[in-house]
Amino acid sequence: MSEGEFEFIARRLRPLATARGALGLTDDAALLDPVPGRQLVLTKDAMVAGVHFLPDDPPGQIAQKLLRVNLSDLAAMGATPLGYLLALARSGDIADDWLAAFCTGLAADNAAFGIALLGGDTVATPGPLTLSLTAIGEVPAGAALLRAGARPGEDVWVSGTLGDAALGLKVLRRESEVADEARAWLIERYRLPQPRLALGQALRGIASAAIDISDGLVADLGHILEVSGVGAEVHAAALPLSAAARDLPGARDAALSGGDDYELLFTAPPKRRDELEALARQLDLPLTRIGAIRVDPGLLVLDQKGQELRVRKAGWQHF
Amino acid sequence: MSEGEFEFIARRLRPLATARGALGLTDDAALLDPVPGRQLVLTKDAMVAGVHFLPDDPPGQIAQKLLRVNLSDLAAMGATPLGYLLALARSGDIADDWLAAFCTGLAADNAAFGIALLGGDTVATPGPLTLSLTAIGEVPAGAALLRAGARPGEDVWVSGTLGDAALGLKVLRRESEVADEARAWLIERYRLPQPRLALGQALRGIASAAIDISDGLVADLGHILEVSGVGAEVHAAALPLSAAARDLPGARDAALSGGDDYELLFTAPPKRRDELEALARQLDLPLTRIGAIRVDPGLLVLDQKGQELRVRKAGWQHF
Repeated sequence: MSEGEFEFIARRLRPLATARGALGLTDDAALLDPVPGRQLVLTKDAMVAGVHFLPDDPPGQIAQKLLRVNLSDLAAMGATPLGYLLALARSGDIADDWLAAFCTGLAADNAAFGIALLGGDTVATPGPLTLSLTAIGEVPAGAALLRAGARPGEDVWVSGTLGDAALGLKVLRRESEVADEARAWLIERYRLPQPRLALGQALRGIASAAIDISDGLVADLGHILEVSGVGAEVHAAALPLSAAARDLPGARDAALSGGDDYELLFTAPPKRRDELEALARQLDLPLTRIGAIRVDPGLLVLDQKGQELRVRKAGWQHF
Repeated sequence: MSEGEFEFIARRLRPLATARGALGLTDDAALLDPVPGRQLVLTKDAMVAGVHFLPDDPPGQIAQKLLRVNLSDLAAMGATPLGYLLALARSGDIADDWLAAFCTGLAADNAAFGIALLGGDTVATPGPLTLSLTAIGEVPAGAALLRAGARPGEDVWVSGTLGDAALGLKVLRRESEVADEARAWLIERYRLPQPRLALGQALRGIASAAIDISDGLVADLGHILEVSGVGAEVHAAALPLSAAARDLPGARDAALSGGDDYELLFTAPPKRRDELEALARQLDLPLTRIGAIRVDPGLLVLDQKGQELRVRKAGWQHF
């Protein structure tokens, strides 16, 4: 027999609600004590089984991905995460075991990121499992990184490596054959993004604009360009590729247009280069200059000879 | 041809995002400036087409109900609403017109309650339309109404009338026949709850415990009793019934166990009776004493002769 809603909340969710303001999940809402001089940062992402994750992905990793894509939004704003609210629409095929493993994933990331469940809602659905998470973070007032702010002449930077997640999804769908070790790495990059929280926080006061790469480099850089009212050129040969991705067919396309990498894409004045290189060493995270902001609108992607490459322009449209 | 995601956001959602911290929905997250001396109050409810609303309910009213069930949670905490984030998982049958009407409903309630859209996410689903909303409010620090706090000897109070929404749902499902005027009133009570925000705020410092009635009086009073570690007796004849509900079969059962009324249920010491009666007049909202808190655990529902009534004990289990 299936756990009822109240049993699920008491047994599985209450242990995750370790923040005082969560009130043990016994109340209608959670309380949060803002710290004077800080702004709160709020973000909300939804995920649907079969659309945003594969139904046979490990449940703990689905929970972690749901949490981390939201933490990645906080990272892109330079925020420190505080906690989250979860809405879970349970489909008939989701067993108690599955939910228990899902909550174990949340518990692991609560510990990893120093956060707690604050509240939420659990409902039933005749459709696929549908998840929505609202993450709350904080930044010193006025210090949040925004998408608007990129100026001509500034460098375009990206963290980590690009295209891994898109290639990992291809591997899972058996559309790509790779060696075992590379396979495991690419799949982990797809299933378990690393929100670049320490980087985002360190970029406050350095980056002029920032975004996380969820829809793909071209689409997400497009968002910065649009709200900043500028253009950019990007050098395809400069895109950082992982050892696992480098020799695979489609690696460059994945780096340009693949989504789900959750690396940070940001702009900064050239005079900050030394600082950023030192930061990369300090965080043990590659930071790569991939191009420059221009006055002329639009995004030019250039090959090694300086010729313009044609790139699939559209990023992800979610519906 | 259907509006794409970006067109939908730009055309329909951006006009709702009138708060400065929503950043015109151009960023990864929203910013909120907490007011010193206030706590934030956070709540999140989800609704699924066919489960929490009828697929042919008017889209604007679905939007308003989604918003208002969350505002009702804020009301139960004594909070003032500030804004909200919305996740919308769009099913294939949802046309652009439907979404436009949905957003018109949000706009109406933004104006009515002085709030704004802060952010969110739009995704596609192969299942039914699924909605999740996170509402944010504020209370003076330490002043939030909680469920714990009811003490033996205190009065149990309820606002408005009970059972209307459950009877309205029956009418919509053609399980009940009523006159036209009563029909319209009951359906509106089901579709368009009135979050008791002014009452909740006025109850700060008066009520010892509070909750909104979403799962039914018996279930929701049970939540107060459980976390307060007390029992209660309730007089069935004292339950406030609307003129439309009064003579319908099943009205008393609906008042005891029907959900979705979104009235406030609260406890207060007997010495606050005069104040509460004055408050009822001031707000033009009936406040009715329906029973008392007892030392002995459990909930007794008594008829006019003081005999115990048997009541369906379980409230809503959501999955």
